[in-house]
Amino acid sequence: MNLGHVIGSVWATRKDPSLEGKRMLLVQPLDFDGALRGGPIAALDTVDAGVGDTVIFVTSAEAAIPFKPENDLTATDATIVGVVDEVSRPPSE
Amino acid sequence: MNLGHVIGSVWATRKDPSLEGKRMLLVQPLDFDGALRGGPIAALDTVDAGVGDTVIFVTSAEAAIPFKPENDLTATDATIVGVVDEVSRPPSE
Amino acid sequence: MNLGHVIGSVWATRKDPSLEGKRMLLVQPLDFDGALRGGPIAALDTVDAGVGDTVIFVTSAEAAIPFKPENDLTATDATIVGVVDEVSRPPSE
Amino acid sequence: MNLGHVIGSVWATRKDPSLEGKRMLLVQPLDFDGALRGGPIAALDTVDAGVGDTVIFVTSAEAAIPFKPENDLTATDATIVGVVDEVSRPPSE
Amino acid sequence: MNLGHVIGSVWATRKDPSLEGKRMLLVQPLDFDGALRGGPIAALDTVDAGVGDTVIFVTSAEAAIPFKPENDLTATDATIVGVVDEVSRPPSE
Repeated sequence: MNLGHVIGSVWATRKDPSLEGKRMLLVQPLDFDGALRGGPIAALDTVDAGVGDTVIFVTSAEAAIPFKPENDLTATDATIVGVVDEVSRPPSE
Repeated sequence: MNLGHVIGSVWATRKDPSLEGKRMLLVQPLDFDGALRGGPIAALDTVDAGVGDTVIFVTSAEAAIPFKPENDLTATDATIVGVVDEVSRPPSE
Repeated sequence: MNLGHVIGSVWATRKDPSLEGKRMLLVQPLDFDGALRGGPIAALDTVDAGVGDTVIFVTSAEAAIPFKPENDLTATDATIVGVVDEVSRPPSE
Repeated sequence: MNLGHVIGSVWATRKDPSLEGKRMLLVQPLDFDGALRGGPIAALDTVDAGVGDTVIFVTSAEAAIPFKPENDLTATDATIVGVVDEVSRPPSE
Repeated sequence: MNLGHVIGSVWATRKDPSLEGKRMLLVQPLDFDGALRGGPIAALDTVDAGVGDTVIFVTSAEAAIPFKPENDLTATDATIVGVVDEVSRPPSE
């Protein structure tokens, strides 16, 4: 699972019916050290994330899981599944 | 989900039966800043996209979803699922 | 979907039963500009492609689709699904 | 399957229901030579791994498998599936 | 499908039940020219491969296929599916 920062929205009127009524957010992937990791991607939202939130998103076939039972009808390969509160990382010995 | 620009078409007479009657477009992947990201790929079309359109496409197993209920018969790993109207990106604070 | 050039064959006598009787070809991935993209991979053949053919191949879970209804029994992650006739690319405006 | 080192935890109160009650660990991917491979990722835990453990984790669609029979409800793309005791590597001839 | 060289074994006592009784081998991915491609990975074995064998392995969701009918219970994303006898590559014209 990947860490990212919500930085915007993507709008598409003409789209696959499975995507109707779902929010598509622009997410900047981050390293867990806070550094940028590649360029922004578009991801569906399932947790009411907003611009400025730090989120966990999944990619590939798992991205359709939050839309169950209709999930085989949702054409997504990136979905936000949590808003991160904290990453705890004890000092290594 | 990825952003791309439709730049052409791919023609194949001899192909898997699941691809018969489906349009295969040539798509140049883009960063959300508009920069090119790698080289062009071939993607199936589901939204009547044309050369010059900016599109959202999905890759991997999700790419077969728009072809439901026949989707287990469609051998694709990249499919266009929306035509992008706008990417809104509020200035970061 | 990816473009490639068939450049050889891979032979394996001892293999998973799902691969028995299927041809495994050596494919050099190409950019749509004709440049090489990484090194050769092995892909199953579904369209009677031969050495010298330019082909479209799919990767990941979709690669098992052409082998339906037996597809959950075919252990492949790269399959040739079409022989390319032409890539048309209108000059950009 | 990949090798990693558990280095911390990720906390998210607001998350997809499929992730409720599951531990999300921060894992540093490693080469089998012990060198770091890219930056840390978040992975679900199935084997009670803890900070300091060397683990095997799977990614992509397989990552939901350990959560069967509820697995289509678990939105994960990285899961720890074993704690490594030893990697044996005979000297090459 | 990818080419690799079996170079060792991975031992894990505490692991996901789906992996019990299955051999986990250490595989060095190779180019079809014999050059190393990245670092070693762990892969399940289905063809009684041993250290020194040149093998074909699949990755991602397909990797569970050889374990059918129990395959949705096997948490693997890399599986050896054949022992390579020969790669034939006619000289290009």
